[in-house]
Amino acid sequence: MRIAVDAMGGDHAPEEIVPGALAAAQIVDAEICLVGDEIQLNALLSDTTGAVARAAVDTRRAGRVTVVHEPGVVGMDESPRAALQRKRRSSMAACVDMVRDGEADAAVSAGNSGAFMALATTRLRNIADIDRPAIAITIPTKTGKAILLDAGANADCRSEHLAQFATMGICYAEHLLGLDSPRVATLNIGEEQCKGNALTQATYSLLASAPINFVGHVEPNAILDGHVDVIVADGFVGNVVLKTIEASLQFFNDGIKAGIASSHLARLGAWLMRPVFRSLAAKCDWAEYGGALLLGVNGVCVVSHGRSDRRAIREAIVVAANAVEHDIVEEMRQSVQLLSALPASTEVLSNSPQV
Amino acid sequence: MRIAVDAMGGDHAPEEIVPGALAAAQIVDAEICLVGDEIQLNALLSDTTGAVARAAVDTRRAGRVTVVHEPGVVGMDESPRAALQRKRRSSMAACVDMVRDGEADAAVSAGNSGAFMALATTRLRNIADIDRPAIAITIPTKTGKAILLDAGANADCRSEHLAQFATMGICYAEHLLGLDSPRVATLNIGEEQCKGNALTQATYSLLASAPINFVGHVEPNAILDGHVDVIVADGFVGNVVLKTIEASLQFFNDGIKAGIASSHLARLGAWLMRPVFRSLAAKCDWAEYGGALLLGVNGVCVVSHGRSDRRAIREAIVVAANAVEHDIVEEMRQSVQLLSALPASTEVLSNSPQV
Repeated sequence: MRIAVDAMGGDHAPEEIVPGALAAAQIVDAEICLVGDEIQLNALLSDTTGAVARAAVDTRRAGRVTVVHEPGVVGMDESPRAALQRKRRSSMAACVDMVRDGEADAAVSAGNSGAFMALATTRLRNIADIDRPAIAITIPTKTGKAILLDAGANADCRSEHLAQFATMGICYAEHLLGLDSPRVATLNIGEEQCKGNALTQATYSLLASAPINFVGHVEPNAILDGHVDVIVADGFVGNVVLKTIEASLQFFNDGIKAGIASSHLARLGAWLMRPVFRSLAAKCDWAEYGGALLLGVNGVCVVSHGRSDRRAIREAIVVAANAVEHDIVEEMRQSVQLLSALPASTEVLSNSPQV
Repeated sequence: MRIAVDAMGGDHAPEEIVPGALAAAQIVDAEICLVGDEIQLNALLSDTTGAVARAAVDTRRAGRVTVVHEPGVVGMDESPRAALQRKRRSSMAACVDMVRDGEADAAVSAGNSGAFMALATTRLRNIADIDRPAIAITIPTKTGKAILLDAGANADCRSEHLAQFATMGICYAEHLLGLDSPRVATLNIGEEQCKGNALTQATYSLLASAPINFVGHVEPNAILDGHVDVIVADGFVGNVVLKTIEASLQFFNDGIKAGIASSHLARLGAWLMRPVFRSLAAKCDWAEYGGALLLGVNGVCVVSHGRSDRRAIREAIVVAANAVEHDIVEEMRQSVQLLSALPASTEVLSNSPQV
């Protein structure tokens, strides 16, 4: 197995990407191919100080981490269109091309996610019967994990798209989370069928008649309480939910830190509570859940957070390796055949530009 | 000032509504008129045990809490349409009618919010130039409070509606929060103008050309960090954000409780941290922020959470009294005249049923 990693993509590239790749190389059975400026990458790989360096020596010796020279970088603020049209190749495009050309089994990038999705959809093309690829993210819940999709690939969607997301989410949950007959729900602002907007109501009708374990509309608390396994939403709402959870936990965290700073007793209390806070932090640590799969394209693509550190990159590579190992693209192709059983909806939608 | 309170509306009505009204009567300069089944209400008011009873005696003696008999109840699951069409009157409808007929200055209900909104919009009618009334909720932030609207009245909106929400939100922030030139933002999944869905992009264009302090798109973290004062969103997204914040804080809270339960040292730590937790809880306590104003109708209507306890009811009445005192409806009428300066947008929207 060979995983192409965009070494130049992300807020902390390539400094954090290289150690992340080295760490991943020690836990996954794959060759990690760092794609980027070979001068910078080799300098980082041959840095002989610290634990990273020792890992580098070991893994390079074993041929587990390699370098492909492609110095062009897609800017974090570059428009997806510009990234597609640029004449000079980029490390990100090279990773996607390697997957397309069979030179790699998966592509991982923490760079400009809009550009990465645009490159993936145009160069790898969608799986047959999938209109819109979706970003699937795992959310920590009280009882385990849930899959939320779309987490941001498609800001405006129709109900057929959400039905396709459901099919892909079920496939993800079955093959990567090992769930049997995962519970599928539409994210909504009320549990009753009649509640919601035009999109969620139309999606409810579609999913209720599909041969899946559809449990109906759920509100955000049901997700975090672990009552459902696969939650579908349009990419705008999915992304808002994701970012609101992150922001709320940060709000709570900052509030506790500020409280501790103003009192010796509270600081002692916090010290005694360290194991509790650590365990919660591990659960809520989005870096651990950093690897979001772009589902619906002909290849494994993992979209990592722009601010990914080495740990997040390691996890993203683990997600990629896991997806390749479970042949998720082929499973997805088979799953979407179920889709043909679903009737089409008729609601109107503004044809709008995507994020 | 006279405030009509739907004593039969809410999960804990009338048991929690009555003490909430009694508590409010002691802090606001108004007559609180409890509308509901007078037998039940008088029984609760003449209960001679406890602090509630003592407050009851004082306030009743002063004529601050009165009872209007109207025993019909709108069910929590009753459709808004059914609530409008029911032949038998209800306590909720009576409250709204009292405002319409000048017998009360404000109506407060913790009952079926869809029915309450339907009653308010049909019986009080919208302020001129307002197409859709919106629910405005105050969100605690690191630096104070922010207004989010719409928090759930309109699941599907057009950009003109969001522009109207902005105008109403500014009026709220100026007159009820005392802010000068409040910062207005569109809730979005990226800060760049080009990011978002069709609705947020069209709204951006409208607001950018309006004579307001528009700061552009914001993501959820900017709200909780206190970077903006008025955030507009369609009622679906606004409601999802609200419920996601609630669910996330509950998730964190439950995680800490579970951690404490399993360790004596952590329990001691939590005891030492009590002031920190209490202060955070007070900030995050949605009961304190329970009174959401329905803006855009010809009357002050406060929509309280269905699960409101006495404290939430007290706060909802305080919000109502504050709104009446600041003559918010008249201020709103004047503010919306600004709207005529805004050009109309052209994007398409599915004409869908409302929540």
